[in-house]
Amino acid sequence: MSNSVTKGGMPKANSQVEAAEQKSEPNDRASLPLHWHNEVVTDITDVQSAWLTAQDLEQIRERLPIVYVDAIPVRVDDAGRVTKIGLLLRGRPDGSISRAVISGRVLYGERIRDALLRHIEKDLGGVALPQIPTNPAPFTVAEYFPDPEVSGFHDPRQHAVSLVYVVPVKGDCAPSQDALDLVWLTPAEAVSQNVRAEMTGGQDLLVQLALAHSGVLS
Amino acid sequence: MSNSVTKGGMPKANSQVEAAEQKSEPNDRASLPLHWHNEVVTDITDVQSAWLTAQDLEQIRERLPIVYVDAIPVRVDDAGRVTKIGLLLRGRPDGSISRAVISGRVLYGERIRDALLRHIEKDLGGVALPQIPTNPAPFTVAEYFPDPEVSGFHDPRQHAVSLVYVVPVKGDCAPSQDALDLVWLTPAEAVSQNVRAEMTGGQDLLVQLALAHSGVLS
Amino acid sequence: MSNSVTKGGMPKANSQVEAAEQKSEPNDRASLPLHWHNEVVTDITDVQSAWLTAQDLEQIRERLPIVYVDAIPVRVDDAGRVTKIGLLLRGRPDGSISRAVISGRVLYGERIRDALLRHIEKDLGGVALPQIPTNPAPFTVAEYFPDPEVSGFHDPRQHAVSLVYVVPVKGDCAPSQDALDLVWLTPAEAVSQNVRAEMTGGQDLLVQLALAHSGVLS
Amino acid sequence: MSNSVTKGGMPKANSQVEAAEQKSEPNDRASLPLHWHNEVVTDITDVQSAWLTAQDLEQIRERLPIVYVDAIPVRVDDAGRVTKIGLLLRGRPDGSISRAVISGRVLYGERIRDALLRHIEKDLGGVALPQIPTNPAPFTVAEYFPDPEVSGFHDPRQHAVSLVYVVPVKGDCAPSQDALDLVWLTPAEAVSQNVRAEMTGGQDLLVQLALAHSGVLS
Repeated sequence: MSNSVTKGGMPKANSQVEAAEQKSEPNDRASLPLHWHNEVVTDITDVQSAWLTAQDLEQIRERLPIVYVDAIPVRVDDAGRVTKIGLLLRGRPDGSISRAVISGRVLYGERIRDALLRHIEKDLGGVALPQIPTNPAPFTVAEYFPDPEVSGFHDPRQHAVSLVYVVPVKGDCAPSQDALDLVWLTPAEAVSQNVRAEMTGGQDLLVQLALAHSGVLS
Repeated sequence: MSNSVTKGGMPKANSQVEAAEQKSEPNDRASLPLHWHNEVVTDITDVQSAWLTAQDLEQIRERLPIVYVDAIPVRVDDAGRVTKIGLLLRGRPDGSISRAVISGRVLYGERIRDALLRHIEKDLGGVALPQIPTNPAPFTVAEYFPDPEVSGFHDPRQHAVSLVYVVPVKGDCAPSQDALDLVWLTPAEAVSQNVRAEMTGGQDLLVQLALAHSGVLS
Repeated sequence: MSNSVTKGGMPKANSQVEAAEQKSEPNDRASLPLHWHNEVVTDITDVQSAWLTAQDLEQIRERLPIVYVDAIPVRVDDAGRVTKIGLLLRGRPDGSISRAVISGRVLYGERIRDALLRHIEKDLGGVALPQIPTNPAPFTVAEYFPDPEVSGFHDPRQHAVSLVYVVPVKGDCAPSQDALDLVWLTPAEAVSQNVRAEMTGGQDLLVQLALAHSGVLS
Repeated sequence: MSNSVTKGGMPKANSQVEAAEQKSEPNDRASLPLHWHNEVVTDITDVQSAWLTAQDLEQIRERLPIVYVDAIPVRVDDAGRVTKIGLLLRGRPDGSISRAVISGRVLYGERIRDALLRHIEKDLGGVALPQIPTNPAPFTVAEYFPDPEVSGFHDPRQHAVSLVYVVPVKGDCAPSQDALDLVWLTPAEAVSQNVRAEMTGGQDLLVQLALAHSGVLS
């Protein structure tokens, strides 16, 4: 397995590929300059995805479910009670803005918990101090389908099977990369009609499931 | 999504493809007659995999993690205590025999719980009466890698992310398709050195995790 | 431990004690004739509670948290999807009627899963065919307090720590003992404002948590 | 509920009562001077246990299951992998020494997560920085019985129903109160025959279940 990634994290070069794969930006590739794909391939020659171009990935996405991780970042008190939920704010290609949880693909050769850590660092910055759960089992599985009616979780690009985790973060969080902003909401705010109206693709349902799992009642 | 599968189950034609993908038979494709791939493609023209040949799948397997479900079938008493664990017995291409739990791929467009039901029916027959858990979250996630050292779960063909469930079955079970036999072992027998020695690729660990999850102590 | 109960279930004589302890009838003891306590004590001379009179229990309830189990009975399809939720309808001493899930105390010497089975049989009858989960861990813990503000779960009589389970039932269910009726509601009906208004003490929250745990979205 | 404890923690005066209730010291009360009980009662006049003497508790323990929490303290890496397990070392009245996880009673009026935090601070000190899980559900339930044959979990004093949690701790830990020592063992060491032989009452099984829950294989 000379091409497999090393345990414990991915080279930073991949972050470009990943940024382009953000679930919340389904049309991102359409707006990329044509030479972009080649650049990426050059950047990541040494890792496993050298021959997995964005075009390849797009084709595979129409044939096989893709493995994702979703993370709902939370602030907790000393006794582990959820006090705040973190929601990213992301610009959409059509100019709209949507709130979303952290989400991203698991790469070939990558452990689930390393993918989780990588995506959290990518979206919240390097000093968020996330507490990845010891239990590898997700608290729920979000099955995203191109058809929004199938499961309530919608991704126009693909059938994604996402392992979902509630992740307390203790450190400073700064939205990075393509996120416009990060807001911390109380559980009551996070499930309010106003906020729910700002979430698409089932993100509002994920937040509800995460709060229920945390024993937070509404 | 005119090619997506219908909810609730897959056409029977797929069973041939799946049989060839059994995790416990890593070398199966090598022994297939050359004309086999074409036959399969013909068989499943009407479903989503028409253009996902075995060759395609093989290539994708070297680039992306594949979504699987594993099921540990158990017999339980009226109060839900695990009394027996079902292990399949499968012939390997090299002539050896290995015990294994139920395992199989999630197809494009297929819900996790439908994949679980499909693979259980395929391996235990149509009257096993499995009790698929209400909770969609697996009790653990088995990450299979071509490198046996990464996680303890080994699949020479691919990086598979498998959602693992304990599934009580109430009805008659008959090993079907490529399973030679099905044995029901007590928890103590299932974790004995003898039985563990008959399992490869981390199947023995899965059995241990399933028993621990069920509160069965050893 | 000559007084300890046998494994696997409690003598039927206890059902009277238990009926009087139903969480949904907080004032039941106040309306009991004075000679009742003695009768019960006589009935159950041979079991562990001979010297645990209703009066004793009442005193203990003001000093120690009491162990309970709650069960949300559900109907599921072949793939384990929750299709219906069962809610009991119970008369209250004040003449009102409340919907409630199954709930009851764990007795001294009794296993959790045996208590679960016993209370389900008591409320749904002997042919409900409940599928007690293999995993001994509850999906949530409902902490009932005399002060309704503490946790959202309210029991005027006591501090009860209740282990909560979702339990599929396959057989015929008939409300027994003190339940007036049993209704099966769709998930959407069960969380509707109308039905929520008919539940007290946090029972509506339990139903919501159970549905979230089952991946049923609303 | 003028006697109920305040949310978020118990007065320090209770620590004496609790110390006397340590599960790992079943015979502690026998060796207490006679005047001890009165002192305790005097100390805690202002809290809920004023009229729950050690004698009362002893009687109740023969009649009702008692609510406990157990915590397995672990060290984790950045991605949440368990690297070490903390085991307390405690002197027994007979002069023997036993390894044990953190365990203690839930008090009347106390939330589960507050009890968990309180017992961890009591055993590991005030700067252990425990990460109490957001999910209120325990990963397993340990049912301790006076009869060691019933469940594998044994407590000669009582029937205790213990909610068990894996709790990562990030800070400095110092065994406090009645613990002689605290050792951090690798998962492999923690389940070795040598260490298992040093644990009684099912503590070795708890460690195994905790590791299985954390996806740590052996």
